[in-house]
Amino acid sequence: MRATLYGGPRDITVGDRPDPRIEQPTDAVVRVLLGCVCGSDMWYFRGQSPHALGPIGHEFIGIVEDIGDQVSTLAVGDLVIAPFLWCCGQCRPCRTGWPSNCVNGGSFGNHGHDGGQGEAVRSPYADATLVKVPGHDHDQQTLRSLLALSDVMCTGHHAAVSADVRKGQTVAVVGDGAVGLCAVLAAHRLGADRIIALSRHPQRQQLALEFGATDIVPERGEEAVQRIKDLTDGFGVDAVMECVGTGQSMDTAFGVAAVGSIVGAVGVPHDVVVPITSMIFRNIGLRGGVAPARKYIPELLPDVLTGTINPGKVFDHETELDHVLDAYQAMDERRAIKSLVRI
Amino acid sequence: MRATLYGGPRDITVGDRPDPRIEQPTDAVVRVLLGCVCGSDMWYFRGQSPHALGPIGHEFIGIVEDIGDQVSTLAVGDLVIAPFLWCCGQCRPCRTGWPSNCVNGGSFGNHGHDGGQGEAVRSPYADATLVKVPGHDHDQQTLRSLLALSDVMCTGHHAAVSADVRKGQTVAVVGDGAVGLCAVLAAHRLGADRIIALSRHPQRQQLALEFGATDIVPERGEEAVQRIKDLTDGFGVDAVMECVGTGQSMDTAFGVAAVGSIVGAVGVPHDVVVPITSMIFRNIGLRGGVAPARKYIPELLPDVLTGTINPGKVFDHETELDHVLDAYQAMDERRAIKSLVRI
Repeated sequence: MRATLYGGPRDITVGDRPDPRIEQPTDAVVRVLLGCVCGSDMWYFRGQSPHALGPIGHEFIGIVEDIGDQVSTLAVGDLVIAPFLWCCGQCRPCRTGWPSNCVNGGSFGNHGHDGGQGEAVRSPYADATLVKVPGHDHDQQTLRSLLALSDVMCTGHHAAVSADVRKGQTVAVVGDGAVGLCAVLAAHRLGADRIIALSRHPQRQQLALEFGATDIVPERGEEAVQRIKDLTDGFGVDAVMECVGTGQSMDTAFGVAAVGSIVGAVGVPHDVVVPITSMIFRNIGLRGGVAPARKYIPELLPDVLTGTINPGKVFDHETELDHVLDAYQAMDERRAIKSLVRI
Repeated sequence: MRATLYGGPRDITVGDRPDPRIEQPTDAVVRVLLGCVCGSDMWYFRGQSPHALGPIGHEFIGIVEDIGDQVSTLAVGDLVIAPFLWCCGQCRPCRTGWPSNCVNGGSFGNHGHDGGQGEAVRSPYADATLVKVPGHDHDQQTLRSLLALSDVMCTGHHAAVSADVRKGQTVAVVGDGAVGLCAVLAAHRLGADRIIALSRHPQRQQLALEFGATDIVPERGEEAVQRIKDLTDGFGVDAVMECVGTGQSMDTAFGVAAVGSIVGAVGVPHDVVVPITSMIFRNIGLRGGVAPARKYIPELLPDVLTGTINPGKVFDHETELDHVLDAYQAMDERRAIKSLVRI
């Protein structure tokens, strides 16, 4: 089969890989329909973080092509969503709602495992990992939103859940990448009344408004903090979603957090120093991390299927597999919010 | 009146102060029955943190001696508990459950305001601040436990609430000071099944067991982490209460926290670096801060009055006002868990 391969910073090619086969009785092989590029892929694309060489791409939807003898909830031909990490469903983290921290888990498209930017993927623990999508003949927009459930929408939702976003609140989202935009959508879905999105990019501002943002703040850093304080009678917001992971974005998040609120953080941290003293004196919490996508997909799926939420709108750039390098470059150059890769 | 005065590190004396009087119509004057020394008083006693010179002591119970014209819920002769911070009851933090962050608030026994280690105290915003204790002729043990509600028990409870301690959980408490011991009691009250207390001091171990601890870990640092991992099948605990505030105690707290758990921290931070990357990759949260005692006192009071909880047992040393220096020295030298000052 053909698959996207990482050869080092900015070295993204399409090459041949062995066709995946059932190796364990709990495996499934999935023929990929749609894959995409994650904001976190930019870190290694730009050489800012290490990544194993070989197949990449951890987000995909596809059709089950083969199943092992012990797979009981899936059948050949099923449309499935893969969360970006596989999980066993049996260990303590899985049983307590943290499949993303499964002790037997791993990431698609890393350490030599098939990636979602390739033609097919072997999924370990298929029953526990893959989520079957009911219904047939889903339109393209629905398929794109189903793909968004693989990671980005679940990660935005995790920011909102971690920040304890509740009905009627005033909240802020730091970061206008695809995750930040999905956090806006998640906060809107959870009933936040006023959603302040930090963005200086017209297209992202527009999508934030479509997703439910009520206020756009184009300022950054201290100026953004002051602007949001001004918008909230000086008190800050009831919940903050931090969807970047840099020192500045985290400072902004804590700067706009009201007394007693929580910063829900889902960005991979780079040069972040947590302001512990002001957290303690102002009773501000910090939660979040790698999203338990496998737990969230079944909860969010009905809203996608009914069209209540359309997270697939974050895909504003599209390539075929052969042009996958362009998918990366478009995001690197901020020409795209998020690139879809049609397999 | 006579009151304890801070003159600088280790300089604790009893001197004369003007008798407090009603200054605002919302004030009350309280004749102090019992005061005490807080673990946080040790920071300035030892010269490790600054503190205003003058009257000190932020925990007390007493009898209402006079009230302003606008005080409606208290009468002269009432027995009251003072939370360590006064609060207006009207501002946004007060209305949202964070009276400890009241924008009109302040601390008893600081910046020249009457302290609880003196004969009398003027309480601003008396209706919002002071909690009336029902009933009469409370015995000495009950009075000591009522005093504990002024700060230490509410702070231990805040550690447990912040860590989201729930029925049936396995939890750990880092710190065997009075707050840590109250956190054990709070976790027990909230239904934790297994409570691991870190303590190497026999008397504190004994009180931890009385308060509901099921396991005592005398090790510190990495050894303590390993021991608690061994006790929990390698996964760590469901909730951690951090009741010290040093870098080492915080490292231990994060080290024993299971995936998805929260560290509830109430120690004033000194040289703490929050391990943000492992937090994010393991979905471990951090919450806590200055306890909203005024919110918790009414919730905990019935359990004190029925004898269900006896947080007053943390007072294992007692002095008269004239010997208040000894109350400090006993805690400084770890001869006492917590010193009561009889006024």
